[in-house]
Amino acid sequence: MKTTLIGSGNIAWHLGKALQRAGHEIVAVYSLTAAHREELAEVLPPAKAVDSLDLRATGAELFVIAVPDAAIASVAATVQVPNGAMIVHTSGSQPLAVLQGIAGARPGVFYPLQTFSKFKPVDFSTIPILLEAEDEQTLQALQEVASTISKEVHQVDSHKRKQLHLAAVFACNFTNHLLGISRQLLQEAALPDTLLQPLIQETIAKAMQSHPFQVQTGPAVRHDQNVIEEHLRLLQDQPLYQQVYQLLTQSIKDHSPKQ
Amino acid sequence: MKTTLIGSGNIAWHLGKALQRAGHEIVAVYSLTAAHREELAEVLPPAKAVDSLDLRATGAELFVIAVPDAAIASVAATVQVPNGAMIVHTSGSQPLAVLQGIAGARPGVFYPLQTFSKFKPVDFSTIPILLEAEDEQTLQALQEVASTISKEVHQVDSHKRKQLHLAAVFACNFTNHLLGISRQLLQEAALPDTLLQPLIQETIAKAMQSHPFQVQTGPAVRHDQNVIEEHLRLLQDQPLYQQVYQLLTQSIKDHSPKQ
Repeated sequence: MKTTLIGSGNIAWHLGKALQRAGHEIVAVYSLTAAHREELAEVLPPAKAVDSLDLRATGAELFVIAVPDAAIASVAATVQVPNGAMIVHTSGSQPLAVLQGIAGARPGVFYPLQTFSKFKPVDFSTIPILLEAEDEQTLQALQEVASTISKEVHQVDSHKRKQLHLAAVFACNFTNHLLGISRQLLQEAALPDTLLQPLIQETIAKAMQSHPFQVQTGPAVRHDQNVIEEHLRLLQDQPLYQQVYQLLTQSIKDHSPKQ
Repeated sequence: MKTTLIGSGNIAWHLGKALQRAGHEIVAVYSLTAAHREELAEVLPPAKAVDSLDLRATGAELFVIAVPDAAIASVAATVQVPNGAMIVHTSGSQPLAVLQGIAGARPGVFYPLQTFSKFKPVDFSTIPILLEAEDEQTLQALQEVASTISKEVHQVDSHKRKQLHLAAVFACNFTNHLLGISRQLLQEAALPDTLLQPLIQETIAKAMQSHPFQVQTGPAVRHDQNVIEEHLRLLQDQPLYQQVYQLLTQSIKDHSPKQ
C-alpha cells in the first residue's frame, strides 16, 4: 500500500518503519519543519519530503496523520488527497468525525496503542492497533494493512476508544505520576532511586496476571490506621501528596470493606 | 547459620528456601497452625515443626520473625531465645524497637523488599535486603547472612525504612489500585482486559529509565482541558474515581506549569 506520512514525530517514525518493513512503500513525508520531513524521508526510501498539504500528486492510496492531537483538526481543514484515498489519524483521543470534512476522502482511525520513544526500537507485532472507519470496505482495507504489522488488530469505535483512553490515563499517566512521587520521596530520604524497582516490577507483573483489586496489598487494604496516620504525618509538608494519599487510601478501603 | 523461622507464610517460605539454598540450616519452624508449621518444616529438612515460642532448645543462633506486622509485638512479648541469639523481624513498616524487650536477645531487622506469592519462585539475588541492628557486631553478622542470598544488601535505619515504606505505598499499592480502576473501566466498556498491557509495560519501563516526572504524558501534562473535561463526564456516575482523576490531574499539572 503506497502511503504518505503527515507528521514526523515518534509515531510517524516508528509506524513508517514498521510499514516499510512489512513491504509497504512510503512515498512521501509531510512536516511543517523542513529538517524533520527531510530526516524522516531519508530513512524511509523512496519517500520524498514534501512541504505542502496538497498531497494529490504523491501517488499514495493511504494518508496517515501522525501529528499532535491538537493539530489534527487544522491538518484536516487544509489537506487535499486524491479522490477515494484513505486518510487516517493515529490518535486515541480524537473521534473519527474530526476527519469527516476532507473532500473525496475515506476517513479512518489507525491507532497504535503504545507510547513511542524516537530511538528505542519497538516490536510492532505485539502492539494493539485499533481501527475505525465509516464503511466496511475501508475498514477491511485498513484491517489488511494493520495485520501486516501487528497480530493484535481490533475494531473499536470512537466512543469506546474514548473509554479506552480514559482507562489508559489511569493505568499509565497516573501510575507514572505516582512513580514520580515515589522517586521524589526516596530522594528526599537519601535512599537509592532504584531500591524499589524489583518490587515495582513484581507488583505490575502480579497486577497483569490477576485482577489488581484481588491482589491489593498495603496499609489501606488492611485498614491499618496506625500506619496510615504515620504516613500522613510524614507527608505533612507536602499537602498535595497528603491529599493523594488520603484519597487513594479511601478508594482502596471502599473496595475492601473491613472484615 | 542455624536458623529458626517464626511464621509460615510467604516470606517465611521463600526466605527459608533461600537461606537453605545458601547453605544455612533451618533447625525449626514455629507457627500457630499445626498444618502450616508441619508443611513448611517438611520442605526445609532437617527443620522440626515446633508449637511453643519457648525456642531456647532449638539450637539456632538466628531467629527470623516472619509474621503479619500486627502480630510482631505479641510474638516479641512471648518468645524466648537463648542468651545472645539474634532475633530479627522482616517487616518494612515496624521499627527495630518492637523487638527490644526480648530478654537476652540481640534484636535486628532483616527486611526483604519484595512481595511474595507462595508458589511463584523468586530470584532472591536481586531482592534488596535492608538491615538494621543496635550494634556493629550484630549488623555485621546479619550482613554476612544477607549477602549469601542477595547482592543488594543495605543498612537502613527505622526512620528511613518508614520513608521507604511510604514511597512503596505510592509506587506499588497505589499504582496497583489505579491498574484495578483501569481494568474495571475496560470491562465496563466491554474491551479486552489485556488491551492496555503493552502500553503499561512500556510506561513502567520508561519510568524506570528516566525520572518519571520527565517522561510524563497524557492530557494533564499537556493541560488539555477539553479531554480532561470529557473524561470527567465519562466518570460522572463514579464520583470517587472522578475525584481521583481530578486530584491526580491537578498534581500532574502542578509539576508541569503551562508553557
